[in-house]
Amino acid sequence: MADKYTDFVSRGWGRDLAKRLGLPQPVTLRRHEPGAPLVPGPVLLVGAGPGADALETALKGWDVEVLRDLGETHDGGAAAASSGAPAARAGAGKGGARLGAIVLALDGIARPEDLSGLFLAAGRHLRSLAPSGRVVTVSRRSSTADEPAIAAARSGVEGALRSLARELRNGATGNGILLAEGVPVDAPSALGALRFLLSGRAAYVDGQFLTVGTAKGELPSDPEKPLAGKVAVVTGAARGIGAAIARTLARDGAKLVVVDVPAAGDALAKVANEVRGTALQLDITRPDAGERILEHALHRHGGLDILVHNAGITRDKLLANMDAAKWDAVVAVNLAAQLRINDALLASDKLGEGFRIVSVASTSGIAGNRGQTNYAASKAGVMGMVRSTAARLAATGGTANAVAPGFIETEMTARIPLGMREVGRRINSLQQGGQPVDVAEAIGFLASDAAGGISGNVLRVCGQYWMGQ
Amino acid sequence: MADKYTDFVSRGWGRDLAKRLGLPQPVTLRRHEPGAPLVPGPVLLVGAGPGADALETALKGWDVEVLRDLGETHDGGAAAASSGAPAARAGAGKGGARLGAIVLALDGIARPEDLSGLFLAAGRHLRSLAPSGRVVTVSRRSSTADEPAIAAARSGVEGALRSLARELRNGATGNGILLAEGVPVDAPSALGALRFLLSGRAAYVDGQFLTVGTAKGELPSDPEKPLAGKVAVVTGAARGIGAAIARTLARDGAKLVVVDVPAAGDALAKVANEVRGTALQLDITRPDAGERILEHALHRHGGLDILVHNAGITRDKLLANMDAAKWDAVVAVNLAAQLRINDALLASDKLGEGFRIVSVASTSGIAGNRGQTNYAASKAGVMGMVRSTAARLAATGGTANAVAPGFIETEMTARIPLGMREVGRRINSLQQGGQPVDVAEAIGFLASDAAGGISGNVLRVCGQYWMGQ
Repeated sequence: MADKYTDFVSRGWGRDLAKRLGLPQPVTLRRHEPGAPLVPGPVLLVGAGPGADALETALKGWDVEVLRDLGETHDGGAAAASSGAPAARAGAGKGGARLGAIVLALDGIARPEDLSGLFLAAGRHLRSLAPSGRVVTVSRRSSTADEPAIAAARSGVEGALRSLARELRNGATGNGILLAEGVPVDAPSALGALRFLLSGRAAYVDGQFLTVGTAKGELPSDPEKPLAGKVAVVTGAARGIGAAIARTLARDGAKLVVVDVPAAGDALAKVANEVRGTALQLDITRPDAGERILEHALHRHGGLDILVHNAGITRDKLLANMDAAKWDAVVAVNLAAQLRINDALLASDKLGEGFRIVSVASTSGIAGNRGQTNYAASKAGVMGMVRSTAARLAATGGTANAVAPGFIETEMTARIPLGMREVGRRINSLQQGGQPVDVAEAIGFLASDAAGGISGNVLRVCGQYWMGQ
Repeated sequence: MADKYTDFVSRGWGRDLAKRLGLPQPVTLRRHEPGAPLVPGPVLLVGAGPGADALETALKGWDVEVLRDLGETHDGGAAAASSGAPAARAGAGKGGARLGAIVLALDGIARPEDLSGLFLAAGRHLRSLAPSGRVVTVSRRSSTADEPAIAAARSGVEGALRSLARELRNGATGNGILLAEGVPVDAPSALGALRFLLSGRAAYVDGQFLTVGTAKGELPSDPEKPLAGKVAVVTGAARGIGAAIARTLARDGAKLVVVDVPAAGDALAKVANEVRGTALQLDITRPDAGERILEHALHRHGGLDILVHNAGITRDKLLANMDAAKWDAVVAVNLAAQLRINDALLASDKLGEGFRIVSVASTSGIAGNRGQTNYAASKAGVMGMVRSTAARLAATGGTANAVAPGFIETEMTARIPLGMREVGRRINSLQQGGQPVDVAEAIGFLASDAAGGISGNVLRVCGQYWMGQ
């Protein structure tokens, strides 16, 4: 769905007009294009120590120009790293190119006072950040620290990053990676998450953290085909976000099984043709839905590696006016069907190693939403399900995660009355709704081998939407 | 600080005008007054089973009229409970009084389908809810469920309740209690939390959950004096939220030590006189601040039971313009001082059993806030500190918790430019800013013996402020 306002104020006299009137000025976001550079300029790496050095090595391995700032001086100067990477000056980079990203290596912080030099160093370079540039923090999870000072410093990163993300403009975003105790900075999923967050794939992910729980996972040999050889099932794939997921996973190399209700059969067949996959017409609330999905995938594609639970419905009413039919239908499709399908698949011994489940939740499930008690119950339920299923899958190297879209431009949101729709799509740090592909890209990452160390996460794809708990 | 707009639109022609123009219509909230009834009408208890019966017993023990709805029929009828409490009809209660609260007993749910009948039963009675009425869910924590279906059902409660809270009007709020595995519905802190959430003390707590982790704690013999005999220290107590905390804890029976910087000595002395406590002029960033607080409390009051870390400062700047002085001052006062003081106190053997720490965090620390990277870092850090300190205190029956205020009407928020201030105070479910006393009441509860089973919580006092992660 096009956002005509964003197109209008992104260029020419529309931009000048919006600026003069003080209107929101969303910009067209940098999104993934095969073959395009990972970041739109050199990466400034802030921080010192083995973690920072490991990040420098990884970035250089991705053909990224790296500048260093040790983050220890407050006077506007910046020290060069021992590794020999050039020191950063404002606006620096070869030929004065703008920075593609600022990466903060914060894995070694041990007390709140350690944050100051590093964040201020990042701050000195913010004006050099390119449009759709990135700020990414790499730090450790707070909850497992047993020293209060360490826990405080680590939590502090989250507050600072979320504030910083709200200060960025021109399509730039701020996100973070939280490493569990003992997981190295260059663990496969830490680097996988870093690549994802730096890239155009994460265009609409803002103000969020990915937690890397283990050193499992594997970076793809071909970054353009991270899902090569995988068989993926996507439910609700006939249109909207589901169709975008199918296209994105296919682009990334997966063989697709697209699932939707028989009534959407024509649209589903078109998507299947487009992605060169197979279509399975199926009501996912059928008791044998899981068995039928498995049978189809095994019979037609010889395996099943990725299951994307995307199918979902809304039946909005204030609770005072809600009837059982509306409530029960939403819970049956959005949650109970996922549970039943998972049970059937996990009971089978035919799944590939490292099976991936990715469910589509919603920011409504996190924050609640007026008129959506049933929908929010189902989507919050999905998040609980994913966390519990993650624990169950851990033994076999499988993962379960969810993405929680905020305001995404789809046929569904296009039906929201104009005034509410304009509010809904502007109350986020990027001042625009996301595109279905933005949700799809996050799912593609979580479904990949690179995310093998990431499980039980709920990743918001919401442009740092205001609504929260 | 008065909110003149709320006064204006709460009554008379101001109310009519606001309604006609479609403006926000906040109402004056029910707040605690000594001797007032716990709830403004009978309590409808939705649900069946031992948990519901135990809640009925507890509510009746508090002189509350209880109606029952088993929540199992969808046809608008309501079945009477086996216990003999009368069945609820719409608008029921003795003489047709409006409902003071709806309490949902959800502790026994085992699959997502179990939510429907119970929430729909609550929905049927929502129009009977009195102004400043309450909806309170009692359910179990999702994260410890090992069955995905149970985890999903439990998480579903959170999405449904948060949505429902956004649908309530006239000062009514919705909140929940999450019980850890094995903690009975009538554990002291579960009942303590229920009393708190039903009461006017929780006027500005909305859309939130309190987690009861253990069966520790003790309900007060006199509910009007839950802090009788306790010695409490409040930092930053010369004005604003800190002074309100001192007054509230004193009203609840505590002996007060009020602490503030020497420059605020006159205001501090006035607060100390008012609460019949003692004043301690102290810069809390001094290395020996903890020792001096302890020495004062022991010497003047013979003990120390409660420490409220309220002192805090802001030095707002966009990170690109931030200097080290601004960043470091905020972290030093808001976070590093708390860590150092806690270390000194916990190293002593002079504290009372069941020592209570309550820190004032902020929704900025949760959601981030433009211009507040330093402040949000410090407040997020406080939350990490509290979770880590909670684990450390568990052995001695102590607890550490935080409250996270949203938009509170203080001298600080009165300095925000008018337009931003109006947005800030309206973007929450109650469409108004909170009062300092609302923060104080939450702290008073967390400091009480009744909250002995609640630790490591961060309770938002924000009227269900929009801003979240």
